[in-house]
Amino acid sequence: MSATIPTAAVLLIGDEILSGRTKDRNLGYIADYLAALGIDLKEARVVPDIEAEIVAAVNALRARYTYLFTTGGIGPTHDDITAESVAAAFDVPIDHNPKAVAILTAYFAEIGREANEARMRMARIPKGAVLIENPVSKAPGFQMANVFVMAGVPRIMQAMMDEIAPRLAKGVPMAVRNIEFRGGEGDVAKPLSQVQDRYPSVVIGSYPFQAPDGFATNLVLRSRDVAALDKALAEVQAIATDLVAEGKARGWS
Amino acid sequence: MSATIPTAAVLLIGDEILSGRTKDRNLGYIADYLAALGIDLKEARVVPDIEAEIVAAVNALRARYTYLFTTGGIGPTHDDITAESVAAAFDVPIDHNPKAVAILTAYFAEIGREANEARMRMARIPKGAVLIENPVSKAPGFQMANVFVMAGVPRIMQAMMDEIAPRLAKGVPMAVRNIEFRGGEGDVAKPLSQVQDRYPSVVIGSYPFQAPDGFATNLVLRSRDVAALDKALAEVQAIATDLVAEGKARGWS
Repeated sequence: MSATIPTAAVLLIGDEILSGRTKDRNLGYIADYLAALGIDLKEARVVPDIEAEIVAAVNALRARYTYLFTTGGIGPTHDDITAESVAAAFDVPIDHNPKAVAILTAYFAEIGREANEARMRMARIPKGAVLIENPVSKAPGFQMANVFVMAGVPRIMQAMMDEIAPRLAKGVPMAVRNIEFRGGEGDVAKPLSQVQDRYPSVVIGSYPFQAPDGFATNLVLRSRDVAALDKALAEVQAIATDLVAEGKARGWS
Repeated sequence: MSATIPTAAVLLIGDEILSGRTKDRNLGYIADYLAALGIDLKEARVVPDIEAEIVAAVNALRARYTYLFTTGGIGPTHDDITAESVAAAFDVPIDHNPKAVAILTAYFAEIGREANEARMRMARIPKGAVLIENPVSKAPGFQMANVFVMAGVPRIMQAMMDEIAPRLAKGVPMAVRNIEFRGGEGDVAKPLSQVQDRYPSVVIGSYPFQAPDGFATNLVLRSRDVAALDKALAEVQAIATDLVAEGKARGWS
């Protein structure tokens, strides 16, 4: 079944994330978005605004996964080099795209902004790419083969994901179950691993958190095989209930 | 000068980030922390709980940068495989570390928790590694050569960074200046790039945001050469002031 499930990587491009200035909110959004489409996000990377770094990451990730989604670096300023870098990664020329020029020229005329050289730089698109519409501020992203190049501004990136979604092959979404266990990971670890061994088609994760009355653990089960998932869920639920009843669940780790 | 500046990468380990279940807060924290120490964070990656993926990322990043910081996967449950994976990356054995065993045994006795097999799994440390103390829940992280392996729980990771800091070579922190420009990137792009060309030792970034009265742009200048930084800052400030005065600054892009 997994052979039929599309895979994906995310590449966040920008010095501002690595410098700490900007706290990324795009990865989590894209992760949720792809999960809902049944596309498995397998890897993410963050690279600075350096062409060689962007080229290397784009080529490594586009070769390995069904799709690559990038955010950042498509604005009008000198530090926006994503389009040129993606063109270099595909070894194709980049120039002003007539459709993008038309969109931006009309938009700037409409809102009374000068269509200056810098703004029209946002119409530079690698040869062979298909535009991704930007309903927020018009400057388009683009799709080059299996690579989707989006803005870094969350509101614009989110609108672009909606434009992209119809172009994507969909998978079977993972079904997810969560049990909030009033004990520590160390209390439940052994029986939990035994359930994991019995249900290889179910991915079982354990995530401690601080509850109002002490530390507790979220037990998360994920699978595309709902029958196996609910069997595993019942077993984990029984284990958690027994541990609490026996007073063996004692909080964090 | 840059030859004397330590570099770093961050590796976030865990299915929960790629599935969207957990929204990472560690990268931004570590980025800020390293910036304050004058260590340049150059790259970040997120990989799932799969040994081959962790090994490949650890070996790629530790070879390339002065330091590698990892978060996640050092708990007691079956899905915590970071310690084993780092041992595999370095091709060294992993076993119960006597100092870690002593710390955990004493702690579990003190708080009345069973030192069961799963909990004591947290004392398994690759051969040759040095422990990183965990003042929150005692289960230690470890340093293996230039790789620092930390917990994924933010509160614990943050305490571990404080334990690690004295072991790190410090660089010259980047000085940072910010100008909030009441206009769009497209208004300032051309003169800004001319300033960038005149000051190669200053990194100038442009980040649009939505202000109460419309879109605006943060112009961020970063450098280790404070004299050049403040000269460039004065030029950018003059450009921004003139554009607003001339009514040429017109918001987003």
